[in-house]
Amino acid sequence: MKAEIITIGDELLIGQTVDTNSAWMGQALSSLGFDIHRKTSVHDKREDILGILSDASSRSDVVLITGGLGPTSDDITKNTLCEFFNTKLVLDLRVLGMIESMMSKRGFPMNENNRKQAEVPESCTVLTNAAGTAPGMWFEKNGTVFVSMPGVPSEMKYIMNEHVIPALGKRFTSQVIVHKNIMTFGTPEARLAEILTDFEAGLPRCIKLAYLPSSGIIKLRLTATGDNREELLKLTGEQVCKLYETIPQFIYGEDEETLEMAVGRLLRDKNLTLCTAESCTGGNISHKITSVPGSSDYYRGSVIAYANDIKTSVLGVDPILIEREGAVSESVAAAMAEGARNLMKTDFAVATTGIAGPAGGTQLKPVGTIWIAVSRGSGTITEKHAFTTDRVTNITRFTYAALNLLRKQIIST
Amino acid sequence: MKAEIITIGDELLIGQTVDTNSAWMGQALSSLGFDIHRKTSVHDKREDILGILSDASSRSDVVLITGGLGPTSDDITKNTLCEFFNTKLVLDLRVLGMIESMMSKRGFPMNENNRKQAEVPESCTVLTNAAGTAPGMWFEKNGTVFVSMPGVPSEMKYIMNEHVIPALGKRFTSQVIVHKNIMTFGTPEARLAEILTDFEAGLPRCIKLAYLPSSGIIKLRLTATGDNREELLKLTGEQVCKLYETIPQFIYGEDEETLEMAVGRLLRDKNLTLCTAESCTGGNISHKITSVPGSSDYYRGSVIAYANDIKTSVLGVDPILIEREGAVSESVAAAMAEGARNLMKTDFAVATTGIAGPAGGTQLKPVGTIWIAVSRGSGTITEKHAFTTDRVTNITRFTYAALNLLRKQIIST
Repeated sequence: MKAEIITIGDELLIGQTVDTNSAWMGQALSSLGFDIHRKTSVHDKREDILGILSDASSRSDVVLITGGLGPTSDDITKNTLCEFFNTKLVLDLRVLGMIESMMSKRGFPMNENNRKQAEVPESCTVLTNAAGTAPGMWFEKNGTVFVSMPGVPSEMKYIMNEHVIPALGKRFTSQVIVHKNIMTFGTPEARLAEILTDFEAGLPRCIKLAYLPSSGIIKLRLTATGDNREELLKLTGEQVCKLYETIPQFIYGEDEETLEMAVGRLLRDKNLTLCTAESCTGGNISHKITSVPGSSDYYRGSVIAYANDIKTSVLGVDPILIEREGAVSESVAAAMAEGARNLMKTDFAVATTGIAGPAGGTQLKPVGTIWIAVSRGSGTITEKHAFTTDRVTNITRFTYAALNLLRKQIIST
Repeated sequence: MKAEIITIGDELLIGQTVDTNSAWMGQALSSLGFDIHRKTSVHDKREDILGILSDASSRSDVVLITGGLGPTSDDITKNTLCEFFNTKLVLDLRVLGMIESMMSKRGFPMNENNRKQAEVPESCTVLTNAAGTAPGMWFEKNGTVFVSMPGVPSEMKYIMNEHVIPALGKRFTSQVIVHKNIMTFGTPEARLAEILTDFEAGLPRCIKLAYLPSSGIIKLRLTATGDNREELLKLTGEQVCKLYETIPQFIYGEDEETLEMAVGRLLRDKNLTLCTAESCTGGNISHKITSVPGSSDYYRGSVIAYANDIKTSVLGVDPILIEREGAVSESVAAAMAEGARNLMKTDFAVATTGIAGPAGGTQLKPVGTIWIAVSRGSGTITEKHAFTTDRVTNITRFTYAALNLLRKQIIST
């Protein structure tokens, strides 16, 4: 069964907003077994919306649409849908009641814009939206299902989870697609592909392998397609075992596991605690770790020692060391980690000191240089990296390198 | 002049990768004056790629394409382009030399996959790529320009900046489009639209207003279209002045300024320093602040006191206070901010304590509750918020609320 996604909004085309909705909807449709064969973004413009709706209806069984349902005058999707489905707007009293109750809870008065959001095309099935004021709308035309939802991610997700995913699941029985991700870190894509040449050649015909690199993490995605879920799961499982035999040193997790989730899982399993001491990563390691639900079970805290004298006054790094070796040095990274572990009384501490850029680089320590240290009861180990990207990417690379060193040290404990 | 963007890759359709490339390219094309009227993602599949190339050639002057140029076997863009443009692959010795030199610098040996990347369609103009191993390719067919680039963001950006943007600028003289963003925080979209009803009605015909909400920040985008850049800039400037008169309390910046950039700008202008003490935000405030280049000029550091005893041992919060009022309380937030300011000797400190979820909420302090405190020489002020979203969104909302309170306090200094 074929599905496509249409996102409406000038802000998507001129790049002022990154379209995260369609990725989320793509995952949802994919796990229902749909082949998502196309994603299109178009202007908030009547002709363009009508054109893509017409194209989509001729090639897809399901069309998910987001955007252009807001309360403001640049939002024209609802009127255009009326035109395409040959219907008219009518006031929906149930939706009006929900909007009134929501506005009153938030302490805002109702206005004309809010009231307009309770008007819906007469021929649609209304999908209520407890996460916002614009309802979703379900249409059918010549056997194709069209669902229009607001572009605010939390509202789209509410309507998808509450209404659309269950209804599509019931209505369509489609070809089974099984995805399995193996998460790797520590080697570039071309090298990994070289190591996996024989593995790839030996894959069953129903399984495809894709390499999805992002900031040093390479997701290996196996996609199996067929009629029998059990059979596909078994075949995929066999290939996953082969991957673990071939590249054990690079695999850190499965599915959507992040490095920070892997670190958290290992700490929890071993009943260990962690703190961090960050300079160049500026809190990003701590932010990643605490984004994981339940991280307070193993994570105690951090000192972000951005200024050198805070490395000394809070973490107890010897100022002579900083003067002699420089703040970006192996010994300062080690002293930061040890200082943090003493201060916050944890089993593990990870510390970073480096130059994120764009300024601050020297001949010997160019922008992108980082020293990482991991301290534990049995001692402290350090690692140096040299990246060559912009500030924001360097901070991400630094963070992942630190999390990976930490992960390997926890495993070897 | 009309432009469109095609991104190729199964990972985009099934939502395993969020497409940030097309947003970046959309901004670049938009500032060259192009009307970007469509963005499409398709499978790594010959028929789908040929179909969209053919559609695009009939309706656009410029078509930018990314993805499917990697060294692995799931990358089929290059062969499909050869078919579409009726040409064949030939080895490009200059590209081969660049790849060899890059691999040797990184300390990796050349392999067959790397060598294949030096093969290019005979009829294209090669766009060298110093950021990676896959070159860009420029084709022309029936007056339409097609540019194919790798999907790795840093490589696409290199090729765009180095080759594509200058070449398109020279080749096309098109209608002038002027964008101006006014950044607001602190009021929901429907209310802002109500306040701006008269403003919107009074806009000149050549200027459009759009509301772009994201995590509490609403970007107001004015888009002016016409022939005369000077005239459009003048007209847009007049409307910006009107906005400042109408909603001064909500405007924090212009263009792409973030709240953390606004905070940094104010601190730098007033020659003030900052530290943070974070509990529920887990380092995200610090991460945002240090993502801004030059932040070490005003930002000194942070204590992430995730565990309660670290609030006491490092920040000096009275343990009796925590026991009596709870860690999520006005007085603990204030004590954290004051403790951090004493410890790190700064003009300002901002502190957060709250419940990000999904666990940890109670009847009186549900998930989404946060106390924020800002401390400065003249005293400490506090603010409570209640959000109702998931953990990751709550952390973002908490962070922005804290940055905005801090911003207002710096202004009033």
